[in-house]
Amino acid sequence: MLIIGGEGDLAFRKLYPALYHLDNDGNLPESMKIVGVARSKVEQDVFLQRVLDNLGLYVGGDGVDTTTWERFADRLHYSSADATSNQGMEELRNAFFAADDRDLIVYLATPPSIFAPICQTLHSVGLARSNTRIVVEKPLGDNRESFLEINHNLTSIFAEQQVYRIDHYLGKEAVQNLLALRFANTLFEPLWNYKFIDHVQITVAETVGVEGRWEFYDEAGALRDMVQNHLLQLLCLTAMEPPANLAADEVRDEKLKVLRSLKPIDSTNVKTHSVRGQYTAGAVDGNPVTGYCEEDGGKPGSDTETFVAIKAEIENWRWAGVPFYLRTGKRLPQRFSEIVIQFKQVPHFIFGEGGANNSPNCLVIRLQPDDSINLKLMNKVPGLDSSMPLQSVALDLSFSEAFADQRGANAYERLLFDVMNANPTLFMRADEVEAAWTWVDQIREGWRLAGKRVASYTAGSWGPSEAIALMAKDDRNWYDML
Amino acid sequence: MLIIGGEGDLAFRKLYPALYHLDNDGNLPESMKIVGVARSKVEQDVFLQRVLDNLGLYVGGDGVDTTTWERFADRLHYSSADATSNQGMEELRNAFFAADDRDLIVYLATPPSIFAPICQTLHSVGLARSNTRIVVEKPLGDNRESFLEINHNLTSIFAEQQVYRIDHYLGKEAVQNLLALRFANTLFEPLWNYKFIDHVQITVAETVGVEGRWEFYDEAGALRDMVQNHLLQLLCLTAMEPPANLAADEVRDEKLKVLRSLKPIDSTNVKTHSVRGQYTAGAVDGNPVTGYCEEDGGKPGSDTETFVAIKAEIENWRWAGVPFYLRTGKRLPQRFSEIVIQFKQVPHFIFGEGGANNSPNCLVIRLQPDDSINLKLMNKVPGLDSSMPLQSVALDLSFSEAFADQRGANAYERLLFDVMNANPTLFMRADEVEAAWTWVDQIREGWRLAGKRVASYTAGSWGPSEAIALMAKDDRNWYDML
Repeated sequence: MLIIGGEGDLAFRKLYPALYHLDNDGNLPESMKIVGVARSKVEQDVFLQRVLDNLGLYVGGDGVDTTTWERFADRLHYSSADATSNQGMEELRNAFFAADDRDLIVYLATPPSIFAPICQTLHSVGLARSNTRIVVEKPLGDNRESFLEINHNLTSIFAEQQVYRIDHYLGKEAVQNLLALRFANTLFEPLWNYKFIDHVQITVAETVGVEGRWEFYDEAGALRDMVQNHLLQLLCLTAMEPPANLAADEVRDEKLKVLRSLKPIDSTNVKTHSVRGQYTAGAVDGNPVTGYCEEDGGKPGSDTETFVAIKAEIENWRWAGVPFYLRTGKRLPQRFSEIVIQFKQVPHFIFGEGGANNSPNCLVIRLQPDDSINLKLMNKVPGLDSSMPLQSVALDLSFSEAFADQRGANAYERLLFDVMNANPTLFMRADEVEAAWTWVDQIREGWRLAGKRVASYTAGSWGPSEAIALMAKDDRNWYDML
Repeated sequence: MLIIGGEGDLAFRKLYPALYHLDNDGNLPESMKIVGVARSKVEQDVFLQRVLDNLGLYVGGDGVDTTTWERFADRLHYSSADATSNQGMEELRNAFFAADDRDLIVYLATPPSIFAPICQTLHSVGLARSNTRIVVEKPLGDNRESFLEINHNLTSIFAEQQVYRIDHYLGKEAVQNLLALRFANTLFEPLWNYKFIDHVQITVAETVGVEGRWEFYDEAGALRDMVQNHLLQLLCLTAMEPPANLAADEVRDEKLKVLRSLKPIDSTNVKTHSVRGQYTAGAVDGNPVTGYCEEDGGKPGSDTETFVAIKAEIENWRWAGVPFYLRTGKRLPQRFSEIVIQFKQVPHFIFGEGGANNSPNCLVIRLQPDDSINLKLMNKVPGLDSSMPLQSVALDLSFSEAFADQRGANAYERLLFDVMNANPTLFMRADEVEAAWTWVDQIREGWRLAGKRVASYTAGSWGPSEAIALMAKDDRNWYDML
């Protein structure tokens, strides 16, 4: 494996720790080498120490195992080179990747602006082989057009099936368990449609602000940074038809169909179907925080949204009339990502006081901070009251306790493992990304045409009041605010 | 409350303990008196000591509370009298029940053969008032004809709505929670039919033998002793349509419809749809036990069944093609009562090795020895295997832990409480009992005409091999034997 950008944040925080875990669990081929490359001049031992220091921060559990670390450090090499220069990369190839018949994974942990010259260089020095897999991550463009250009740079050198576009949300255990629940149980799929589901909520809530990335973030905004990828991917897995099998293209075809069934949101309905917000000074977790425009590197007068809420609709037979409320933002009161499947109320009440106490069933899939799946049911309050009062109870369907000793794989572990096994099911195909951009671009164009500017919200609140109203006008509420 | 048969087994083991608990929980009216009457001459203090001794055995928990016992003992009176004699009952009335305007509950804890003279006496001495409720329990006859006669004796004195026919299985928390699950959740009712349910199993398994009641039992047999009442009542609550409300007649109308929809089992199909068994010497819980005919008081050559298994079918739109397998027996390996709702397999597998590992969803309602409801679902085995192997897991829907501090009411407590509150929902109406006898009589007549004699089974086994075959020929298995 070649990690280009091997001295960067992503590599230290996610990739090396995930690879370490895979090694620790015996999931790396014995002779596998991992080569980090970047322009910085760093000695091998200094590099190893940095990796080790970061493992200490991110490995968790009992900390770094000495035996595993020795084995892992043996695989690990740092090479100072410019990945866009033939000379440096040729040396690298000769040193580590001379054997043509061995699988090669290239992880582009770099900005997409240099994908093109890197791919050209890989091609020139003979590293773009038929057994090369190339892994990339967001941001893949900032609209449909720029995505297609970035993608063209990749696919003019590599075939589509060699390209692994990561959305690490898809590597979460709870997301995969959602598929198991939907398609391995008789209990849910017959109810998974407009007849029995009232609506779906997908929330990715962050407490952090822009964390020193103001300039980058100000160019992007929440819609492009979060909705276009993470939230739409979760929407797809929740809404898709049962695939005929788990082969990558079967699953991705079904997801694509969902994206293409999204009702367009444009200048005609963007005001009723979307909310844009930007945080002002406030407090999160009891600590005062500055407003968005006053962040380090910030500038006054920005109209970039740090919060977005959207009422999405899927125009097909299964989901007609069932809104999917999407919401994401920075500086919100809690950090979590979750999918809420809100079932309809029973059609008629026979218990208690006319069902005043009856809350409809609800399935809550949490991806962050912990993976969990909860099912809310009604049952009887034990005792003699003959009006049979009921109560809502939550059942843990992820059985985290039953498997407390089986460490759930981190999303990057899972996804890197899948890349090693050439299994692209959990990665995004180019046409999916394109379809997501098409929908998102239309919303942005709608905002522009309709002159929809950001509404402010106090840091530490649940976004602008408009976001509450978005659901309230449909007689619904955000789940966490019930 | 007047308990006729107040020195009997039922009174000491069930009624006084249940009343004590109701008193302890503040559920008895302050001025309520409880009078036990029987022919035996027993002094009040001896009687109280017997009650107290039995409370010690049956109350459980922290034992008998002194304050409650003092209050309870004050309510409690024993009177030696012949309940079929006007003179004795007149004295009783004058001593305890002179106030006509006070509610009176008469519990007939006696054999039904003396219901008629007792009711006549109650009438003669003025205790059969419009505010009298009369409580009776099985055996209510041994066929339709004798039931109608017993019932006539009751209803010639009392109106139908004054008669409370107890089936203590209906007082169990898990049975009422089954109603809450079915009718307060969107999740189950849409699946509760022939499209999604493969079959239902209802088992009442006992480890005991006939326990000194050989002669009585030999006249009855498992079909009449257990199926006619307990198992058919459970079948009704599982299978009935949603009632419009919880009013007694709404619920009982729905149960009656189920009983009347039972497909007749007669001489033409009794051999394929029923199994009769009788235990021979064997071992239960590691202790050797004798065969049925060698029990105390037993006689050789009896053809009475101590085990019965029946494939019942309900001929209506909801349940077409869904068998309800009923099974009950003595000297079985375990003691439990349960309803198993076996859902159909998912129509198509996308996980693991062609679904070899996929077990269909299953809802298991246990009434004995403890109340519980379990839902078996499939979820993903945590980890990296990309074939997504699944596992079956059981969810506790009765939330016994959440309410560990709330002692679940015993069935008799619940039912006596309902009698006090004049709520007959959980009691059997005469037409229900009659319909159950009609179906059961036909089976017995079928056995006679078809010459179906008992098959022997070793005490401590799951009944005759025919019982296994009854399901095996439909490619199914008894749940506990999977």
